Amino acid sequence: MKMFKGIAASDGIAIEKAFLLVEPDLSFTTYTVDNPDEEIERLNQAVQLSKDELFTIHQRTQKDLGRHAAEVFSAHIEILSDPEFFEQVTQLISQKRVNAESALDTVTNKYMDAFNSLTDAYMKQRADDVNDVIKRVMSHLLGVSLNDPALVNRQVIIIAHELTPSVTAQFVPKLVKGIVSDLGGKTSHSAIMSRTLAIPSVVGLENIIGNVHDGDTVIVDGLTGDVIVDPDEDQIETYQKKQQEYQQQKALLEKLTARRTVSNDGKETLLAANISSDDEVEFAIQHGAEAIGLFRTEFLYMSTDKLPTEEEQFTIYKHILELMNNRPVTIRTADIGGDKPVPYLQAPKQANPFLGYRAIRLSLDREDIFRTQLRALIRASAFGKLSIMFPMIATIEELRQAKTVFNEEMAKVKSDGLKVGEIKIGIMVEVPSTVILADQFAAEVDFMSIGTNDLIQYTMAADRGNEKVAYLYQPHNPAVLRMIKMVIDACHRNSIPACMCGEMAGDQLAIPILLGMELDEYSMSARQILPSRSLISTLDSDKMVALANRTLSFYSTSSEVVKDVKRTLYDDHEDTYK
Amino acid sequence: MKMFKGIAASDGIAIEKAFLLVEPDLSFTTYTVDNPDEEIERLNQAVQLSKDELFTIHQRTQKDLGRHAAEVFSAHIEILSDPEFFEQVTQLISQKRVNAESALDTVTNKYMDAFNSLTDAYMKQRADDVNDVIKRVMSHLLGVSLNDPALVNRQVIIIAHELTPSVTAQFVPKLVKGIVSDLGGKTSHSAIMSRTLAIPSVVGLENIIGNVHDGDTVIVDGLTGDVIVDPDEDQIETYQKKQQEYQQQKALLEKLTARRTVSNDGKETLLAANISSDDEVEFAIQHGAEAIGLFRTEFLYMSTDKLPTEEEQFTIYKHILELMNNRPVTIRTADIGGDKPVPYLQAPKQANPFLGYRAIRLSLDREDIFRTQLRALIRASAFGKLSIMFPMIATIEELRQAKTVFNEEMAKVKSDGLKVGEIKIGIMVEVPSTVILADQFAAEVDFMSIGTNDLIQYTMAADRGNEKVAYLYQPHNPAVLRMIKMVIDACHRNSIPACMCGEMAGDQLAIPILLGMELDEYSMSARQILPSRSLISTLDSDKMVALANRTLSFYSTSSEVVKDVKRTLYDDHEDTYK
Repeated sequence: MKMFKGIAASDGIAIEKAFLLVEPDLSFTTYTVDNPDEEIERLNQAVQLSKDELFTIHQRTQKDLGRHAAEVFSAHIEILSDPEFFEQVTQLISQKRVNAESALDTVTNKYMDAFNSLTDAYMKQRADDVNDVIKRVMSHLLGVSLNDPALVNRQVIIIAHELTPSVTAQFVPKLVKGIVSDLGGKTSHSAIMSRTLAIPSVVGLENIIGNVHDGDTVIVDGLTGDVIVDPDEDQIETYQKKQQEYQQQKALLEKLTARRTVSNDGKETLLAANISSDDEVEFAIQHGAEAIGLFRTEFLYMSTDKLPTEEEQFTIYKHILELMNNRPVTIRTADIGGDKPVPYLQAPKQANPFLGYRAIRLSLDREDIFRTQLRALIRASAFGKLSIMFPMIATIEELRQAKTVFNEEMAKVKSDGLKVGEIKIGIMVEVPSTVILADQFAAEVDFMSIGTNDLIQYTMAADRGNEKVAYLYQPHNPAVLRMIKMVIDACHRNSIPACMCGEMAGDQLAIPILLGMELDEYSMSARQILPSRSLISTLDSDKMVALANRTLSFYSTSSEVVKDVKRTLYDDHEDTYK
Repeated sequence: MKMFKGIAASDGIAIEKAFLLVEPDLSFTTYTVDNPDEEIERLNQAVQLSKDELFTIHQRTQKDLGRHAAEVFSAHIEILSDPEFFEQVTQLISQKRVNAESALDTVTNKYMDAFNSLTDAYMKQRADDVNDVIKRVMSHLLGVSLNDPALVNRQVIIIAHELTPSVTAQFVPKLVKGIVSDLGGKTSHSAIMSRTLAIPSVVGLENIIGNVHDGDTVIVDGLTGDVIVDPDEDQIETYQKKQQEYQQQKALLEKLTARRTVSNDGKETLLAANISSDDEVEFAIQHGAEAIGLFRTEFLYMSTDKLPTEEEQFTIYKHILELMNNRPVTIRTADIGGDKPVPYLQAPKQANPFLGYRAIRLSLDREDIFRTQLRALIRASAFGKLSIMFPMIATIEELRQAKTVFNEEMAKVKSDGLKVGEIKIGIMVEVPSTVILADQFAAEVDFMSIGTNDLIQYTMAADRGNEKVAYLYQPHNPAVLRMIKMVIDACHRNSIPACMCGEMAGDQLAIPILLGMELDEYSMSARQILPSRSLISTLDSDKMVALANRTLSFYSTSSEVVKDVKRTLYDDHEDTYK
């Protein structure tokens, strides 16, 4: 029995045999072949086997995770269907009479050198794809198992060093009972993915892969971050009980799906979902979303190699509004640029992308892109209850300029005789200057939505993606809480709703304070909605106002705040919080 | 006559002949030489001529600009004295019988390839140095003039595309009457340099170099940003008059050097200087500094290839305190890391260095470095009036941790029997969280100093070094002003002084507001002190309080604020401001 402690990344308990995702040994020797035609045939078979696998994976991914997730595999299949590439490999085999492995490797390296001399992010992605797919062909040539997660055919816990998108996309969700990895944090790709798929997960274990063998029994506790390898009977029994309790609680939560969000003393709030593609709407509704509080439109710009047309955007916006069936939908204009580069826009590399040319800054500079998006949104507004919000607003001038462009496009759409609905205009509050001037901004918008992820980064001057300073990403820091209160108060003095769409909105230790500050709308990842609704139903708003006031007046550190929240919750509900 | 408008970068008027700093044509042909020994002799002569020039430049730079500025030329001379490098060149000449230019180029390219494969910033700097110095040798081989600013022997106005540190370091200040460049902004290297040397300068002209010929008469108006090429008689006369007036006013200002800083109605404030090396103390005193408000200790870490010892640091801190002769000196602990990388610390490259591992974050992580600096400071405190401040403080915990380390070192120094003075402990307020919690911080420090450069960047979430978003660097934005007021009020409620050491402290359009907010100490670049003292002597504090209150309550944009400041100043002093 060995115990490990990592970062709890996705709720739930799993007890299952380990499946080690180790890099296969694809080393080979170079030798002369007597019959090049036979060798070419061997290559073709390996390519065909790879294609067959990829078709299977593509279909399954599309079914389980939607078409966006599946796109990477279409790309892989396309690479395998590139006649020019394989022409070069077969030529090498016939002319030099070398074995297929060697020829494939030579041609691949030539391609990689060409790719690597390019600095373009799109081409780098392409290079990763080529690498991935050639590995697959190579494994078939060598008869080596890729330890392909797509080929798992029994229930397992995946043990990996690091999980890349192309690997996680291959899981069969119903067979993967748990995910454990050496690398990654709470917001890493695999953590987000495992939460979406509701697979218990612990990440950041540093060297779990060196401590587990294929087939070992493993317990994953996604609630605490504990991982037990080779547990004894008692432990298995304990965790089976814990697993049962967790599932019962989950079932209880599911009953809250269709309910409204009401505190113990009858105060109503609204819980909405953050989504990144129209594929996620249904999942959000299933998890009790009363609205879409943030639709990030970035994927429209980042998943292809050209700007999305007005028609393409219109179709997706309309689709979301229709799916939501007249429940509110807030769509954010593109937050591209900066750390979300769009290769075909060819923006210069920036020294500090988080403090750079992105979001509304890019939209106001590239009005062509902005106007296309606004037209698509305005036209879609006829099909539901649409709010538009502008990201990264830092000055009143930016807001006014964005509104002017919006009004111009609105006039054009109307003069084109197209139907439009009533549209609310708001801003993301994520730049400190906008918090400080919230009273001035509130007078010129229909709503404000606090984007805590960025706001906390700027307020603490710390990039949370930077390991060395990640400890400064402190949602419960009294400075952050005071800023949130400034925004909420400014909204209420101007009779507009105060919303939040950062991760903090779904944080169980922040919600009591936010309720005490009278935040109106909480938008979070869909999976957090039911637990949040459940939590709010147990809270008394008067007590939360008192809690909020204490955090704003007396405390100077994050830990003092968290301590008080826990004490407040614990005293009220000894059964739920320890 | 042609007129151009650029960015006014350094005050004053210059009327002089142009000296064009154009990249020389160093192209050459490769040919076979009959007598390699003669060719080697030709190379040696070119090297010797280059060394002679560099010795002259080095000495003059050391005299005019101090030993730090001169270091680059010692490095150049060292490169020319590297036997291994020239051995390779001479071998190539004798073996392949090629001309010296070709051999030199071949060996240099080989070196450059090796350098460029390294990612280390220190090696990149080294590569630039090699390039610079080989250009010089090549120019002597080819008999081409480098248009070397160091060789200017008459009064000129320098016209350049871009001014690099290695070029500006070569100017003979008394011959360079003006500086004009295509690139650069108010805070670019050449702008700062020209202010230090009191040379009128206009930068950011885009394509001035294509519009001026060597020897053309040029007028540079560093007050307005106007540049006139080939002025007519009338213009020359007008500007000669303007020049005279400027010099008279300057002389008037100089009378204020030994005065205290008092407003028109008798309110006293303190004007201090920001310095980056002990070389600058004398200059600061000459320009009327009543204190050193910020000594940046970064150069101690960045100008060599290893950590400065306690003794080295002690010597410099003591030197500054002694030079200041019991006037207050505030020394900031190292703000290294982030955008000021220290190659030998081998910190990982960061995606957003401004939001990264730097300043106090690095000091608390690398206590070895921090303790050495604190010991040196504590020991130096016996020789003057020392304040220590910590940069980039974002949380109360960081402050407490830094104070704990300080107290431990203080106890050790005392137990070693060494003399220590009274030391005040303060923080830089440059992270938004610290502004918002200023009331909590003020209770735990002896003073606070607002670092506006970084504070504005974080508040507006805009990297001012990034051209695409530089317009968001807004010192007069009401959000920034409200934050400054929060800090000043927090200080005063805790009876400690509120200081400012960002560029804003010397901004003539900000000083009236800051006076109205009752800021206690203004620390700025030395050249701004006398104009600031003069301005303050004309201001009535009551009127400035009213101005400050208007900016805090009524305005939402930077331009509204600036308009009111100008109106307020203009109404009071029609003679000075237009």
